[in-house]
Amino acid sequence: MRKLSPDTPYLAIDKKLLAKNIESMAKKTSKARINLRPHVKTHKIPELAKLQLASGAVGITVATIGEAEVFAKKGIRDIFIAYPLLVSESKLKRLVKLSRKVKLTLAIDSTQGAKALAKGLAGVKVLVEIDSGHHRSGCDPKQAGEVALGAKTLGLNPVGIFTFPGHSYKPKGAKQAVADEQRALKEAATTMAKVGIEAKIISSGSTPSAGFSAESSGKSVKAKSLVNELRPGVYVFNDAQQLELGTCTVNQIALWAVATVVSVTGNRMILDSGSKTLGADRAGWATGYGRLLDFPEARIEALSEHHATAVFPKTKKARPGAKASGGKLPKIGDLVRVIPNHVCNAVNLVDQVYLVESQKVVGSWKVAARGRNS
Amino acid sequence: MRKLSPDTPYLAIDKKLLAKNIESMAKKTSKARINLRPHVKTHKIPELAKLQLASGAVGITVATIGEAEVFAKKGIRDIFIAYPLLVSESKLKRLVKLSRKVKLTLAIDSTQGAKALAKGLAGVKVLVEIDSGHHRSGCDPKQAGEVALGAKTLGLNPVGIFTFPGHSYKPKGAKQAVADEQRALKEAATTMAKVGIEAKIISSGSTPSAGFSAESSGKSVKAKSLVNELRPGVYVFNDAQQLELGTCTVNQIALWAVATVVSVTGNRMILDSGSKTLGADRAGWATGYGRLLDFPEARIEALSEHHATAVFPKTKKARPGAKASGGKLPKIGDLVRVIPNHVCNAVNLVDQVYLVESQKVVGSWKVAARGRNS
Repeated sequence: MRKLSPDTPYLAIDKKLLAKNIESMAKKTSKARINLRPHVKTHKIPELAKLQLASGAVGITVATIGEAEVFAKKGIRDIFIAYPLLVSESKLKRLVKLSRKVKLTLAIDSTQGAKALAKGLAGVKVLVEIDSGHHRSGCDPKQAGEVALGAKTLGLNPVGIFTFPGHSYKPKGAKQAVADEQRALKEAATTMAKVGIEAKIISSGSTPSAGFSAESSGKSVKAKSLVNELRPGVYVFNDAQQLELGTCTVNQIALWAVATVVSVTGNRMILDSGSKTLGADRAGWATGYGRLLDFPEARIEALSEHHATAVFPKTKKARPGAKASGGKLPKIGDLVRVIPNHVCNAVNLVDQVYLVESQKVVGSWKVAARGRNS
Repeated sequence: MRKLSPDTPYLAIDKKLLAKNIESMAKKTSKARINLRPHVKTHKIPELAKLQLASGAVGITVATIGEAEVFAKKGIRDIFIAYPLLVSESKLKRLVKLSRKVKLTLAIDSTQGAKALAKGLAGVKVLVEIDSGHHRSGCDPKQAGEVALGAKTLGLNPVGIFTFPGHSYKPKGAKQAVADEQRALKEAATTMAKVGIEAKIISSGSTPSAGFSAESSGKSVKAKSLVNELRPGVYVFNDAQQLELGTCTVNQIALWAVATVVSVTGNRMILDSGSKTLGADRAGWATGYGRLLDFPEARIEALSEHHATAVFPKTKKARPGAKASGGKLPKIGDLVRVIPNHVCNAVNLVDQVYLVESQKVVGSWKVAARGRNS
């Protein structure tokens, strides 16, 4: 692998696995008759968003105005900013400019948020964000009608509701999160109907819960689920979190960091992919700071900015160069493949990702919206 | 503050506090007759490195070849790459090129590492990295002589030893880490002397331990400490980790994120500075994912990519807009100042940082070595 490779550490995307992941989610949502509007904060790459659109996505979801600007510049014309923006004058100007070339949908979870948008964006479509149990942003589902009516009175165009069931991110959390989401969305849609506003778009989605949402919708759209739009992001690559949550298998991991083993002491190996390559994310339930793609027994027990401490089980098998389930254990100077815990933060650390076919680097993509946080 | 501010979230550096922090460390090390070679991975900004050099630093420390290339291009001529590189042909070529214009010092912790460097860098100065208790990279102090002799035989020029007492990063850990470091450095220097190689440079340093190292050196350089070079990085800005470790006071925090309050539910406020702005670092002993500069009672209890969940104590005082020790509690739409847990990772997320004087933005610096991980 070394000859054709860039200097380590770098991020590599397997083109075939990426294509499979894109297709699989497109099929799942299409079968369930749910619109797919993937969250592109995961990859921030316009070329990749176009593959998602080509496979049937109705548009894209972004988190920031900056991301929307980058994707709009690259020709994407249907963008939902799934964030309860509280816009300053400067941000409002940027949104007004965007709304002239893009079919823009915005988000509110308060009347204050709506007021700030209404100063320059009369008629713009908005979705009301509701809290379905993750307790991050989003209003109480009971208040959705009030927030929507407030927005309408101010001249905005409330067309639906959305939520992020982020509490799906724990072991066996997805099923409960989908149940919570269904209940919350139903309550919110009902309170909106009471003030005469139809929730045409009912949007949800996280990668762990997407399968469950699609399934319950597929069975009986009317009775079992109200969701008609999903916004998963991570599914294009998957990551160590999804692997440990059981949302994906190791054969669906389409992105990894390539790292060099720089130091070996006993069963401890130091890789040059630290938190400035992998990101420092570690949920309470995670078994480490990432996983080695080819060595399922190893764990990354510590992470500095430029060091990952991979620890192998203390068995005879675990000597450097010895055979293990993933082949020979790595030796100093070897390259290894590392799966980040949270791929969205890993991709946001690099200016480009490399494209791989049969473990050969065949090209690269610029992470065009990297760092566009505002 | 809003009128003169860039769109949130953004990082701001207080110029006066930065200058004070630079001066304070320069004085401390000068008094102890220790060379200061600050680690610039913290800020990655050539303009800032030049301020450090102007205040007496003997050179800079970097973590990667990419960082060295950026700082060399900006005219910095004395660079130590404090990382046990295991160079590929491509990295070797880059180092050879660098060594032609820069006084370069490299690092090894194994004979394999030395062998790879010796293929093109005969005569280059190297320091042997030793493990002083952090158990990351670095050889056993007992092996320092063997590694140094191996390097010498291969044609490299071993001139000393270095360590990173990273286990200083826990409450009350600094004093013990310095004691460990002293013991390990002494042992390593002795094993080198036995094979006829003098450890002229004895280098250590982390921000939490720097004060202790300087102190013990200052008292009696010969008897109490061997360290004659320190490489702290974080001290220029400080961060929430240093604050909670007691290494700095709140008046020495020279960098913060400026964020907007976008959503409020009871005593929970959502800020637009998530892990893509602050970094996801959280040590086991940290009380949260960062701190609010003006509200010491608040804690950031959760962090998503674009959301920080700041929780205020449930008291009457903690209502939005109510008075608190930091002044009135923030309301939706207000700007707040957030101290990242680990400033090195926060700065590495942005392309530029803004310079502030008396809370007014007066300029900006490009984070020129951002993302240069290889």
